[in-house]
Amino acid sequence: MFAGKKVLITGGLGFIGSNMARRLVEMGADVLVVDSLIPEYGGNLFNVEGIRGAIQVNISDVRDAHSFRYLVQGRDYLFNLAGQTSHMDSMLDPFTDLEINCRSQLSILEVCREYNPSIRIVFASTRQIYGKPDYLPVDEKHLLRPVDVNGVNKMAGEWFHILYNNVYGLPACALRLGNTYGPRMRIKDARQTFLGVWIRLLLEGRPFEVWEGSQLRDFTFVDDAVEAFLLAASCGGASGRAFNLGGDGPISLKELAEALVEVAGGGEYIERPFPADRKRIDIGDYYANDDCIRQALGWRPRVGLREGLSRTLEYYRENLARYL
Amino acid sequence: MFAGKKVLITGGLGFIGSNMARRLVEMGADVLVVDSLIPEYGGNLFNVEGIRGAIQVNISDVRDAHSFRYLVQGRDYLFNLAGQTSHMDSMLDPFTDLEINCRSQLSILEVCREYNPSIRIVFASTRQIYGKPDYLPVDEKHLLRPVDVNGVNKMAGEWFHILYNNVYGLPACALRLGNTYGPRMRIKDARQTFLGVWIRLLLEGRPFEVWEGSQLRDFTFVDDAVEAFLLAASCGGASGRAFNLGGDGPISLKELAEALVEVAGGGEYIERPFPADRKRIDIGDYYANDDCIRQALGWRPRVGLREGLSRTLEYYRENLARYL
Repeated sequence: MFAGKKVLITGGLGFIGSNMARRLVEMGADVLVVDSLIPEYGGNLFNVEGIRGAIQVNISDVRDAHSFRYLVQGRDYLFNLAGQTSHMDSMLDPFTDLEINCRSQLSILEVCREYNPSIRIVFASTRQIYGKPDYLPVDEKHLLRPVDVNGVNKMAGEWFHILYNNVYGLPACALRLGNTYGPRMRIKDARQTFLGVWIRLLLEGRPFEVWEGSQLRDFTFVDDAVEAFLLAASCGGASGRAFNLGGDGPISLKELAEALVEVAGGGEYIERPFPADRKRIDIGDYYANDDCIRQALGWRPRVGLREGLSRTLEYYRENLARYL
Repeated sequence: MFAGKKVLITGGLGFIGSNMARRLVEMGADVLVVDSLIPEYGGNLFNVEGIRGAIQVNISDVRDAHSFRYLVQGRDYLFNLAGQTSHMDSMLDPFTDLEINCRSQLSILEVCREYNPSIRIVFASTRQIYGKPDYLPVDEKHLLRPVDVNGVNKMAGEWFHILYNNVYGLPACALRLGNTYGPRMRIKDARQTFLGVWIRLLLEGRPFEVWEGSQLRDFTFVDDAVEAFLLAASCGGASGRAFNLGGDGPISLKELAEALVEVAGGGEYIERPFPADRKRIDIGDYYANDDCIRQALGWRPRVGLREGLSRTLEYYRENLARYL
């Protein structure tokens, strides 16, 4: 499907983007990854170690519309994953979040419309835009009621994609990602996912903190997330739609911590309540109903939680130093 | 309620803002209106003719965060009405729409949070954020699925207000306005409402164009809209909520044209299909379920359509030249 195809991945040195680049190289695609390598974000050149010679790497920021005018030309697919992902950072510096997650999305779409209107686009959206769920599991009919600046900007970014599909026929769709985890995620801190910092602390022999252990979440292993992006790009029926991605079923954070310690063969954690500044932007329990993508694209998660945790731990045991 | 209170109105020389300023002056408020007077937008100094000495007028743009740092200080209420309102302009120049309707809203809220966190804010949102309705009448449980850039940016602007209320306790709410009409609306063209340009052409003795005459809409007379803003600002229970505003019940555009001609005592119109560029961002039939604001705030529209049209025509018969 992707053999010989020209693919552009924004955020391509980041967690999901780099796993996608690896998969696409296996499939014989011509892969161009674009990343800003901002230290607080997910980009890491080590993420493309081993495929460095098989891909093109271009360092530029999505806020730089000039470079995108050139970069999108001639590409068949755009996996649009670059973003500011930290909820806390979006509250402390709301304008940077707006520039990246909202304004730059409009700017990328305008550039595609002008320079490559047939490029197929899949946008990495987030379950954060739902806010605090009214009901569980959350399906795509749930109202969008974001609880942080990141959520408002991602909601706008997603809708620019849907809009440009509907009005201009630019083939675009969005995946509303939940908690994605796996090799190459940011583990230095909790900016990308709290599970990253748990794993780092565990491997360093330090206790990790579990906030509100009763809270429910579901977890998608990164290979499954990558598969969803590839399916969404391949299927014309996806255009103009936004799909939830779920995982291996809901699990409480305390159960997740237990599973992690068990799979790791050791480790300690401390339970504590949410810090006040995080509590006020917390969404409570969340897990997804992903029937829509299962039915429309035949996607389903294939990697169970324990297997995923095991593969993740194995990766960071070998490569911890490259992520600190 | 508003006697002696310090009120700031953004877009205060515009259609709804200037009618609000007049009402607040009657009630004894200390009114500061802020407006950019951009010629394509709704601001018009003639709108405050007769109350010019009773209010303060400050010309500045919501994109200018510097002036707002000063202007919000010491104010009890902020009626936040400044905006780019043209759906078509938002498609032709999406970044200007984003700067005004999205980024500047965040910037105003940040300024309020820092310099006046107890100011009570009511934001002028729009039914445009619902997009093409799934069902009629549209209530606040309807998904937001904007069909133009203006809708995406207004959706984000509205949610920044709700968010700052919920996270920072900045008391803010939003009114989702439908088709508002009345004295002081822009009639030079259809940028604010098509009814404006109908009235202009009718008074100039020229035929006006009715596109898709079977389409249903409801219409709110400006005095009723102003009343809703004042109630929303007065009632603590409104904080964090977004309310639909309806009107005198649904009516087809052709029936509206007939009513206008009848009330005016003459006039001609031509029926034609939508132009292609407008058709693709059209939302089809729309009318609001406004039970929420009726129940929460005791609001109801008081001015019927014929009375409203009559008062509007009377105003423009006297003042047409000031609006061309």
